[in-house]
Amino acid sequence: MALIVQKYGGTSVGNPERIRNVADRVAEWHRRGDRIVTVVSAMSGVTDSLIKLAREVCEEPAEREMDVLLATGEQTTISLLAMALHSVGIPAVSLTGAQAGIVTDGRHTKAKIANITPGQVRKHLDNGEVVIVAGFQGQTMEGQITTLGRGGSDLTAIAIAAAIKADVCQIYTDVDGVYTADPRIVPNATKIQEISYDEMLEMAGAGSKVMQARSVEFAKKFNVKFEVRSSFNNNPGTIVKEETKSMEHVVVRGVSVEKNQAKVTISGVPDQPGIAARLFQTIAQAGVNVDMIVQNVSQSGETDITFTLHKDDVKKAHKVAASISELSAARAVTVQEGIAKLSVVGIGMRSHSGVASSLFAALSAQGINIQMISTSEIKITVVIDEARAAAAAQAVHDQFGLNITPQG
Amino acid sequence: MALIVQKYGGTSVGNPERIRNVADRVAEWHRRGDRIVTVVSAMSGVTDSLIKLAREVCEEPAEREMDVLLATGEQTTISLLAMALHSVGIPAVSLTGAQAGIVTDGRHTKAKIANITPGQVRKHLDNGEVVIVAGFQGQTMEGQITTLGRGGSDLTAIAIAAAIKADVCQIYTDVDGVYTADPRIVPNATKIQEISYDEMLEMAGAGSKVMQARSVEFAKKFNVKFEVRSSFNNNPGTIVKEETKSMEHVVVRGVSVEKNQAKVTISGVPDQPGIAARLFQTIAQAGVNVDMIVQNVSQSGETDITFTLHKDDVKKAHKVAASISELSAARAVTVQEGIAKLSVVGIGMRSHSGVASSLFAALSAQGINIQMISTSEIKITVVIDEARAAAAAQAVHDQFGLNITPQG
Repeated sequence: MALIVQKYGGTSVGNPERIRNVADRVAEWHRRGDRIVTVVSAMSGVTDSLIKLAREVCEEPAEREMDVLLATGEQTTISLLAMALHSVGIPAVSLTGAQAGIVTDGRHTKAKIANITPGQVRKHLDNGEVVIVAGFQGQTMEGQITTLGRGGSDLTAIAIAAAIKADVCQIYTDVDGVYTADPRIVPNATKIQEISYDEMLEMAGAGSKVMQARSVEFAKKFNVKFEVRSSFNNNPGTIVKEETKSMEHVVVRGVSVEKNQAKVTISGVPDQPGIAARLFQTIAQAGVNVDMIVQNVSQSGETDITFTLHKDDVKKAHKVAASISELSAARAVTVQEGIAKLSVVGIGMRSHSGVASSLFAALSAQGINIQMISTSEIKITVVIDEARAAAAAQAVHDQFGLNITPQG
Repeated sequence: MALIVQKYGGTSVGNPERIRNVADRVAEWHRRGDRIVTVVSAMSGVTDSLIKLAREVCEEPAEREMDVLLATGEQTTISLLAMALHSVGIPAVSLTGAQAGIVTDGRHTKAKIANITPGQVRKHLDNGEVVIVAGFQGQTMEGQITTLGRGGSDLTAIAIAAAIKADVCQIYTDVDGVYTADPRIVPNATKIQEISYDEMLEMAGAGSKVMQARSVEFAKKFNVKFEVRSSFNNNPGTIVKEETKSMEHVVVRGVSVEKNQAKVTISGVPDQPGIAARLFQTIAQAGVNVDMIVQNVSQSGETDITFTLHKDDVKKAHKVAASISELSAARAVTVQEGIAKLSVVGIGMRSHSGVASSLFAALSAQGINIQMISTSEIKITVVIDEARAAAAAQAVHDQFGLNITPQG
């Protein structure tokens, strides 16, 4: 008899039939004697429709009112799921984020959870009810409705799991776990059985779309073990948890590829203190999200700074290029699209040497040129030609034996 | 500079364009220097869609969960109207029923307002903001979401007007006031300028669809003067208020017709104490809503009891007819459809005699037979053949000079 928090995303509750399917799944756990808290997102498409409605009455809707509007999406799902559970004979009760005690700061549309007072959740669990909580939303101390931003429902689930000290937190999604690589790119990618928070964070940062980094960070902070699994089958998923000794035996946990990148190089920047700060301030003010930043040692008082960004931001980047060039007295600013980021992630890197050279060798054997390199303690990222990204991912995946090593 | 509560119904906010129109109207009042609280319903059609969704996941949805679901309808409208006001430069803020301090009892789907703590409403008014409140909803002391049942948004508006001591409460609707008769039946019906709470109540009870009786009762109890007017033009509407001396000069304020009625007669009921009580208990248990009940003096220890009901309930009435007959040892139970109720209402009746005979004379002149009669202090109701209802209404309207008497 376990205390379990489950989270179902928008696709899993996308229509009445799917909501009934989720109810059947939840009912199964409940009948087994487990105590269940189910966190749900808005039905897929609902949030987009609401945003469309908002734009029809106002060009730039106020964030406070967007939160009032968007919070209705999850409120709809929780009541429908409660009803669906009733119709299969399971006692269930729905709670909005506010009712579930999710207290946030006042940063509308991207609020941070400040604390959780799960009294209502506990009360209804003690009554033997399945407790259904609206994900993605909370309220401020003053009673204002807030939403948590992208990936907010995962965050709700993990935060509630932390607050009620759940035995397990299950994140149901449309993939059945975290893979050693994207199976659409690397067909023989295998599902990872266990992964550490840090590895999961680096995978998220490297473009793995399974979960937002901040939910993983929250889980790490409060040591909430969670499982990413599919809502469409009963396969075990991937457990994300604190790292263990045995995890270090695996040098590389996974390979991530992020396409649709571009890089901007500012050449011949005077090598003086403060130049980089001013540069990136200007870029940030233009609303450009910078990803990797690489600067090499200076030669004859000048240096080159390169940063990567999503190709959708290239227009903005071009716009600021001129002012950047002027500001920095740089020789030239060049923008290059058609590149991809490839990362290998694994806490085993800390204790194993030769990972970088092994990675470079695999790419070299394919004749793939490395344009940029950046490393962290448990990740190595290279920038390569986008057209070669799939071949590179496959080669690196093979190189580290990810298709055969039992993961765990 | 007045403190005004306005209520807009589902049709008035039925789509983004109409919401922008309402915003323009509200903006006009605000620019004039008035302080405005706007109560809104769900966009027309939304509540029905939500009910349909609920039925797709559960045959008999729990009332608590229906309230959680339906409350999203008004929450959507309040945020959209706030955005629409922002886009025309008016400061505005949305509040759910709970945030506006509407505290109710726990009778889900038909909760009663227990009290109002309008601190948030006052605070935002003091900030110079238009305050937009979700009608139809509230929360219990324990924080459960409740809805107020049919006509609930009117009730919200009147209750808030009472709580904040508003100067005026305007109920915007798709008709531009209360008429001496339904203009679709009596083409020369005129708009009533002023009407007393009691007359309005009797009109509502007699089938006038402008407002639910309980909103009028609430207004009467707290002496909230309100105006029923159109959201599609700027015509003055009908003021509903405490009766004044001058109101008594008008003998009949209006004529109401309610079609689609049926009557059930139980003949030869033993004239003993307790029979009627048992009868109507059985009927109530069968879920039949009884309207008029007429019983005449008994003859030779037997009496006839007749009641009217909506024709949609006739099937249920037939079903209980047999058991009624058995229970009451009555001679026969007959059901007759195709009848209509016609009522004349006016507080002037109290001090004017001859209203009944005048009414009967008008019907007689048209050769219309009166099947049942029932009277209250300020209303006379007759049951007639449904096919003659329009002719009867016109004749009675003419008889009391309602097309020419300046109403007020």
